[in-house]
Amino acid sequence: MITLFHCMSARSFRPLWMLEELGIPYALEMLPFPPRALQRSYLDVNPLGTIPLLVDGNTRMTESVAICEYLCARHAPTPLQVSPDEADFGAYLNYLHFGEATLTFPQTLVLRYAHFEPPERRQPSVAEDYAKWFLARLKTLEPVLANQSYLCANRFTAADISVGYALMLATHLGLAPRFTPAVAAYWARLQERTGYIKALAAQQHAAQAQGVSEVPAPDIRPA
Amino acid sequence: MITLFHCMSARSFRPLWMLEELGIPYALEMLPFPPRALQRSYLDVNPLGTIPLLVDGNTRMTESVAICEYLCARHAPTPLQVSPDEADFGAYLNYLHFGEATLTFPQTLVLRYAHFEPPERRQPSVAEDYAKWFLARLKTLEPVLANQSYLCANRFTAADISVGYALMLATHLGLAPRFTPAVAAYWARLQERTGYIKALAAQQHAAQAQGVSEVPAPDIRPA
Repeated sequence: MITLFHCMSARSFRPLWMLEELGIPYALEMLPFPPRALQRSYLDVNPLGTIPLLVDGNTRMTESVAICEYLCARHAPTPLQVSPDEADFGAYLNYLHFGEATLTFPQTLVLRYAHFEPPERRQPSVAEDYAKWFLARLKTLEPVLANQSYLCANRFTAADISVGYALMLATHLGLAPRFTPAVAAYWARLQERTGYIKALAAQQHAAQAQGVSEVPAPDIRPA
Repeated sequence: MITLFHCMSARSFRPLWMLEELGIPYALEMLPFPPRALQRSYLDVNPLGTIPLLVDGNTRMTESVAICEYLCARHAPTPLQVSPDEADFGAYLNYLHFGEATLTFPQTLVLRYAHFEPPERRQPSVAEDYAKWFLARLKTLEPVLANQSYLCANRFTAADISVGYALMLATHLGLAPRFTPAVAAYWARLQERTGYIKALAAQQHAAQAQGVSEVPAPDIRPA
């Protein structure tokens, strides 16, 4: 049985969404955010202190997009991944990484320096630098999404989960009103996916059952 | 013919190193750093303005680790990738992503706010926050590398290129003296790879031939 360690609406939402899309059974372990501070025993399980952590037999993984790739490969064939013999294979890999390295990390700067740090350590100019940085990179999706429903291969794939989570985080940070039209329509489309809706319900149900706060707590990976 | 757009010792060094390890012919287009400011025409080729850009027929990619994955898959079989039927497949994918999302992005904050911004916009506390953040994450490799020469699968793979570039960038930023012993030994080992040495020579040769400065200019992806 796969176990996923998760905080409400944090990066670990990507593997949770993936598990629901694939229809794989899993156990969901909810943690208060940030676990490094609020549940110190988690460091014994994951010395990084970050979420997600996925445990599948002897396999342990901590990178949310890597886990999406792993789950696809382990449950192949699935239309949720793009194979090397498809024309959009390169685009698929690129969007998988783009969703985290280019669209999510900059937002963690906004979260940290505009919301998470105590008032005397906040850095509004850094938060604004990276809000703009994120929105400028996001805008490059506008011409792509103006002509197609999903990022690549004419279907919903793990790349949409990678980028979709970045849009979910941006919504929590109040950046959604600054989305360009095709990006906003794409995000609305993703939220209609049965897998997305089931993942939202699963984390809420698990939080209630395990007595963890249901307030979304994105992973800013504090120092 | 594959074309790689590259700045000296920037993230695009990952695909350059990969190409040399695989022994694939390629054309190397050197750009001054940052191209967004110093070579505006590059925005016509890559609207993101970032490097790398890899062009291979109709495939265009901008994420350095995604390109490493792509090159392995397109030139399979190769021992440089770990296949889904190997025990370390999950670890391999995880280190591929870890090298960028967890070990490289925090360093771009150090670069930006300690070096790149004009003096009045520098943020020494942010630079120090993320130098510590990087070193804390890097330390989790110490017990792994104390017992094995490479990150996974008992051999050199693309995951070592992903993490190896983060160590190269850290060296440019003056963080190498803070590496733990097994990490320092690993970095010394990586620098002895023929592929690494050839990649260094290739960028130097191309910079001279194309009249681009040979001063290393890591990609901080400025706004």
